[in-house]
Amino acid sequence: MPNPEQAPRAWVHTIGRQVGEEVTMHGWLYNKRSSGKVQFLQLRDGTGIVQCVVVKNEVTPEVFALCDSLQQESAISVTGEVRVDSRSPLGYELGARNVVLHHAADDYPISPKEHGVAFLMDHRHLWLRSSRQHAILRIRAGLARACRDFFDSRNFTLLDAPIFTPAACEGTTTLFETDYFGGKAFLSQSGQLYMEAGAMAFGKVYCFGPTFRAEKSKTRRHLTEFWMIEPEVAYFDLEADMDLAEEFVVEIAQRMRREFEPELTLIGRDLAVLDRVRKPLPRIRYDEAIELLRAKGCAVAWGDDFGGDEETLISQEFDRPVIIHRYPIHRKAFYMKQDPADARLALCMDMLASDGYGEIVGGGQREDNLAALERKIAAHGLPKEAFSWYFDLRRYGSVPHAGFGLGLERTLAWICGLHHVRETIPFPRLMDRLSP
Amino acid sequence: MPNPEQAPRAWVHTIGRQVGEEVTMHGWLYNKRSSGKVQFLQLRDGTGIVQCVVVKNEVTPEVFALCDSLQQESAISVTGEVRVDSRSPLGYELGARNVVLHHAADDYPISPKEHGVAFLMDHRHLWLRSSRQHAILRIRAGLARACRDFFDSRNFTLLDAPIFTPAACEGTTTLFETDYFGGKAFLSQSGQLYMEAGAMAFGKVYCFGPTFRAEKSKTRRHLTEFWMIEPEVAYFDLEADMDLAEEFVVEIAQRMRREFEPELTLIGRDLAVLDRVRKPLPRIRYDEAIELLRAKGCAVAWGDDFGGDEETLISQEFDRPVIIHRYPIHRKAFYMKQDPADARLALCMDMLASDGYGEIVGGGQREDNLAALERKIAAHGLPKEAFSWYFDLRRYGSVPHAGFGLGLERTLAWICGLHHVRETIPFPRLMDRLSP
Repeated sequence: MPNPEQAPRAWVHTIGRQVGEEVTMHGWLYNKRSSGKVQFLQLRDGTGIVQCVVVKNEVTPEVFALCDSLQQESAISVTGEVRVDSRSPLGYELGARNVVLHHAADDYPISPKEHGVAFLMDHRHLWLRSSRQHAILRIRAGLARACRDFFDSRNFTLLDAPIFTPAACEGTTTLFETDYFGGKAFLSQSGQLYMEAGAMAFGKVYCFGPTFRAEKSKTRRHLTEFWMIEPEVAYFDLEADMDLAEEFVVEIAQRMRREFEPELTLIGRDLAVLDRVRKPLPRIRYDEAIELLRAKGCAVAWGDDFGGDEETLISQEFDRPVIIHRYPIHRKAFYMKQDPADARLALCMDMLASDGYGEIVGGGQREDNLAALERKIAAHGLPKEAFSWYFDLRRYGSVPHAGFGLGLERTLAWICGLHHVRETIPFPRLMDRLSP
Repeated sequence: MPNPEQAPRAWVHTIGRQVGEEVTMHGWLYNKRSSGKVQFLQLRDGTGIVQCVVVKNEVTPEVFALCDSLQQESAISVTGEVRVDSRSPLGYELGARNVVLHHAADDYPISPKEHGVAFLMDHRHLWLRSSRQHAILRIRAGLARACRDFFDSRNFTLLDAPIFTPAACEGTTTLFETDYFGGKAFLSQSGQLYMEAGAMAFGKVYCFGPTFRAEKSKTRRHLTEFWMIEPEVAYFDLEADMDLAEEFVVEIAQRMRREFEPELTLIGRDLAVLDRVRKPLPRIRYDEAIELLRAKGCAVAWGDDFGGDEETLISQEFDRPVIIHRYPIHRKAFYMKQDPADARLALCMDMLASDGYGEIVGGGQREDNLAALERKIAAHGLPKEAFSWYFDLRRYGSVPHAGFGLGLERTLAWICGLHHVRETIPFPRLMDRLSP
């Protein structure tokens, strides 16, 4: 498509294989400049951008006039010879012999000038075409792939968690609710409880899907809809869980660094931040984190939760991500296992990304004792009946087990060095943003 | 975990590497039999099942008594030597030296006797542990992987579609709705419109995530929540789209056949059905399908939609999946492009699976002309304002483009030869089923 093909089709990302050949490329005009007798068309085909050189006396007058009138994002095909061009970032250019217009775009709204964030977000469906957004979302796809590869290659079974749930995992205040054939369903905030059932069946499982939080937060770290990857392992304790999270984050960060250097460079990421993400990652207890914060003049009391500011202060102390473990149990969700060495603490952990970014991982060991779990459910004021199936996991072959969740968008924001998570997902959903 | 490790850990799926070695295996008792002086424990560890042979005079009296009392799904660790056992399906067994009980399961609800479907569905969190469900969901994970590999290896960019949408893609009658900070949001039925924006930015994209339909259907082919993979390609027409769907379905079916023969055999799949899934897949026009149905005595009129019965009749005529293309346009969604050769028809296609299974793929070429699309939106009574961003894709560099959606669960039901889709997803959501 479209017919007639004028020459074998080429794509920008593999154009180097066709040097000296006549090819046809289909795409959109990204930019252009002219020196009177030569038009330089930047052709965007979705895999990259190539410069097409249109020399006045090498094409028909009609084609040259067409190029002269072409506006940004017009759909065109260019036929010509692939040539080495050592001056361009790509290393190749197209010596155009013919240009065909499929659709003329008039007054494309996103021009090279600066636009406000609201304007760009309103035009997200077009903004995706810009080099920077294109690069970020290519890295996102690579990161999702790296996450899956990590667990698939370690014989974890992908087990999709349901989105519709009859009950809340961690309370109901931040849940989206929908009518379900006359009843009520809530949109999942986490697949963890289901992964616990899966771990007892498959040993090692993970889910990776969208999750939903109706938080009334307009911060740069909050989306109402975001993707989370959640591994869960049977016969696994907090130490093993921290080892797994460490290996995971180091591997995906290094792989992104290795596979996406051009994209990371384009968006201005300081690659040294990623180079430093190597084992071992520092691990400190919550108690140590409190001391660290106080030493920095932060007025924090034992038992306090850490907000974004505290997370940033802590992560600035380390040159790589840091794991904080054994938080006060009264601050944590009902399913966390009490530390047998200190009843005030939970066998849980968070990982804070480096470079001032906040939490990207949260997890820990789960309560595997039925009586203890029933007490916790009651203490948290949760409806016991809704957890009847979850109790079964402690009735029939209960074993120590642990897992964690990693937020894809926050991790991507860190890897790319983005200020706001809104650029980390193709169509961001925020408290005040539901379109396009 | 748990400490102390008595010997290096082994897993069933790789136990063949440790023949002659002393290992410890952690898992659950799947079944057992006894011959007085020997207990045969079937140990399930999530990767498979291995027989552990406990001989009375080779273990302590306490251990032998423990084994005698052990009930199904009790959590145990077994330490012993890995031995070749040519009589077992696995080829190996464990000569037990020690057995440690972690948690005794009393009266596990799912016994080897027959249970009703409702009972098993109520115990889905435990039913996952049975060999048949375990095999089906391992194949599901492999199928999801194969789908991703197919598109990733062809340089499609994964672009996650949003779940929260402000408008309906194909009308509002089967949409789940939620309050969105005082407004309304609908749960996505398809990522297609977003993938069209993505195709213009990346050339070739796909999404793969959960989609939702509030259909009041209690058939064996309907879930309210199911996963769909949706590729979309710019500069692509219906013929190319059918080629892509054909290549895709043939590749994933062959790969499942190749990689999951033991699992497919365990669940009783007739492998010959999968062996026949080879290129070329037959392609017939809707008109031909009507003739075929009439020849079989089916009272169907030109313009009628095909239901499950008609799909089954058609697919029984072929030994492999069949593509039906060019349906009457008045039956189809607003975004489908009219056939320039016949105004009554849409440039669309469905693929019906073989072996009497129904539709697994639906797709086609999209309307790329702004005026035509605006007319269609009006004719379908859809709110024009909600599609303003979608119209932009026809304003700025509109090109021929096409794509399709493949339903993961229906495809898995076909590959596995399952009667009902409820076994194809870890935690099925049906009209009358929201838990566990």
